[in-house]
Amino acid sequence: MKGTIVFENKPSIISTYSIVGQKESQGGLSKCFDKKLDDERYGESSFEKGECKMLGTAINNVVKKSAISLDEVDLIIGGDLLNQIISAGFSARDFDIPFLGIYSACSTITESLLLGGLFVNSNKINNAICVTGSHFATAERQYRYPLELGSTRPPQSQWTVTGAGSFLVSKNQKNTPYLKNATIGRVIDYGVTDANNMGAAMAPACAINLLKHFENTKTNPSDYDLIVSGDLGVLGTRLLKHLLTNEGCNIEKNHVDCGELIYNISEKDFQGGSGAGCSAVVMASYIYPKLCKKELNRVLFCATGALLSPISVSQGESIPSISHIVCLENL
Amino acid sequence: MKGTIVFENKPSIISTYSIVGQKESQGGLSKCFDKKLDDERYGESSFEKGECKMLGTAINNVVKKSAISLDEVDLIIGGDLLNQIISAGFSARDFDIPFLGIYSACSTITESLLLGGLFVNSNKINNAICVTGSHFATAERQYRYPLELGSTRPPQSQWTVTGAGSFLVSKNQKNTPYLKNATIGRVIDYGVTDANNMGAAMAPACAINLLKHFENTKTNPSDYDLIVSGDLGVLGTRLLKHLLTNEGCNIEKNHVDCGELIYNISEKDFQGGSGAGCSAVVMASYIYPKLCKKELNRVLFCATGALLSPISVSQGESIPSISHIVCLENL
Repeated sequence: MKGTIVFENKPSIISTYSIVGQKESQGGLSKCFDKKLDDERYGESSFEKGECKMLGTAINNVVKKSAISLDEVDLIIGGDLLNQIISAGFSARDFDIPFLGIYSACSTITESLLLGGLFVNSNKINNAICVTGSHFATAERQYRYPLELGSTRPPQSQWTVTGAGSFLVSKNQKNTPYLKNATIGRVIDYGVTDANNMGAAMAPACAINLLKHFENTKTNPSDYDLIVSGDLGVLGTRLLKHLLTNEGCNIEKNHVDCGELIYNISEKDFQGGSGAGCSAVVMASYIYPKLCKKELNRVLFCATGALLSPISVSQGESIPSISHIVCLENL
Repeated sequence: MKGTIVFENKPSIISTYSIVGQKESQGGLSKCFDKKLDDERYGESSFEKGECKMLGTAINNVVKKSAISLDEVDLIIGGDLLNQIISAGFSARDFDIPFLGIYSACSTITESLLLGGLFVNSNKINNAICVTGSHFATAERQYRYPLELGSTRPPQSQWTVTGAGSFLVSKNQKNTPYLKNATIGRVIDYGVTDANNMGAAMAPACAINLLKHFENTKTNPSDYDLIVSGDLGVLGTRLLKHLLTNEGCNIEKNHVDCGELIYNISEKDFQGGSGAGCSAVVMASYIYPKLCKKELNRVLFCATGALLSPISVSQGESIPSISHIVCLENL
């Protein structure tokens, strides 16, 4: 059972919120998002400050959408892709609420949810906000090149989602989707060194932790209405399925990838979306409502993160990855 | 009580480990450390890889110093100062153990300890390794200037500690120091903009969370044998005491600061030590053994972190800070 924790008190997710940028507003999930920006700086003087403001909006509005007030929130658990997670840290200074900063690259949202679930499940707190986000422009200049350089993107690359998603985890409430269990990932490194090919780097971590989750919980893929991977993209999803098939595990019938869902994938979107905000906004805006409406009753959410930095890449390191899994139920 | 969680099952800290660089080896705590490096790269090709190796050593050896084996470790909770916490993430890939990445700047070790305590306290796991570290050379070039530039340091600056510290948190064992409770900090920003004056930026966060902790736990400073702040340094410590005195709270008699303790502070050490490794190695090597020997029985450990990044500084932002507190007892 190592790695899997069971939330016997069934902490509920009582509300979610999503805010996205222009490109995301034009994708297939356009109608699902709570707020769509037509200004990538969100009225701020820099992309970074705009990203930070998105997280602040996501924190404020996930509470407004619920029946509780900000005073009743005991904890914010957040992170993002920027160095020193400044978007999460700086957005939290506007709230008189304890804050825990986390970093798990694009799997930050599932780390946040499993920690929020643990705090509520153990009766230490009543309400936790789990939040994360990312921004295309801030991620590009931090991880790769400034946009102004007009660099050519290789076909295996993904497009960092501009967006922030938040979840309000609270004590169990009837008829509300709840966190059933979680499997904490290991750091997995298959030796991929192409910093433009995140899908290939992350797929093994996702496959290994999915197999571990099935083993620990004595379930198999058909026990879930949907298995939602984070931001593997088109190529990464193919690799995930290949790796799982090799182990006798088939997820063809009930798998979606947030990176594949968020854009109407055409050549200019490359492999699809990525970034800490990708799986957070897709889950908050598209999957969670389906749980509320009982169109889905058991969803496995396995966000994936590549733990590289520009320094590790330039020093010749390969790209270790991780995937944390949470199971959401509505039974 | 918002922010404070009580560990009613008293998770024990069954062992600690510390590894430090050359300068730290020459300070007043020299005899306390488990391992002292005479090569700042630790045999690796870069300072970053050396820092990562220090964390790996700290993970391996905190287990070797205990009665358990690596197989029995359920979770590693770690972070560091480097972008995308590569030291923690990359060190974790060498272990077949679930990993949670966290970031709280120089208060990372207390965030790690409170999370490790929560997992063990709620009977979800048996053993968690809490680890963090920092490195003078990697921090200088990331946050300020490359060492080769030979920049003059202002008198209010601190010296980032080269070192890593680890703690093994396990189910309660008799006659072993345990985690009694913890108070999670808020992000506090008093408007300090001098990125060389971390002590001034962090002191308010420490003062506010200490007052919150005393209020929530109905204790006062005299209830503790020792109150250990993280890495405020000489100036930051004076500011902390000043802020607390203004609120009628006196810690003069039983306070030490890890940043003040670690070096024999002379002019060239400026305000003392800082960095995520600073409080971790001082606590692991100097304070924890005193708890084991019952020279101390109740210690309040309030590590402090400045949540700035070079980008936030260059965009004119002030420096928000945080302090997470854990109480260690031996009664």
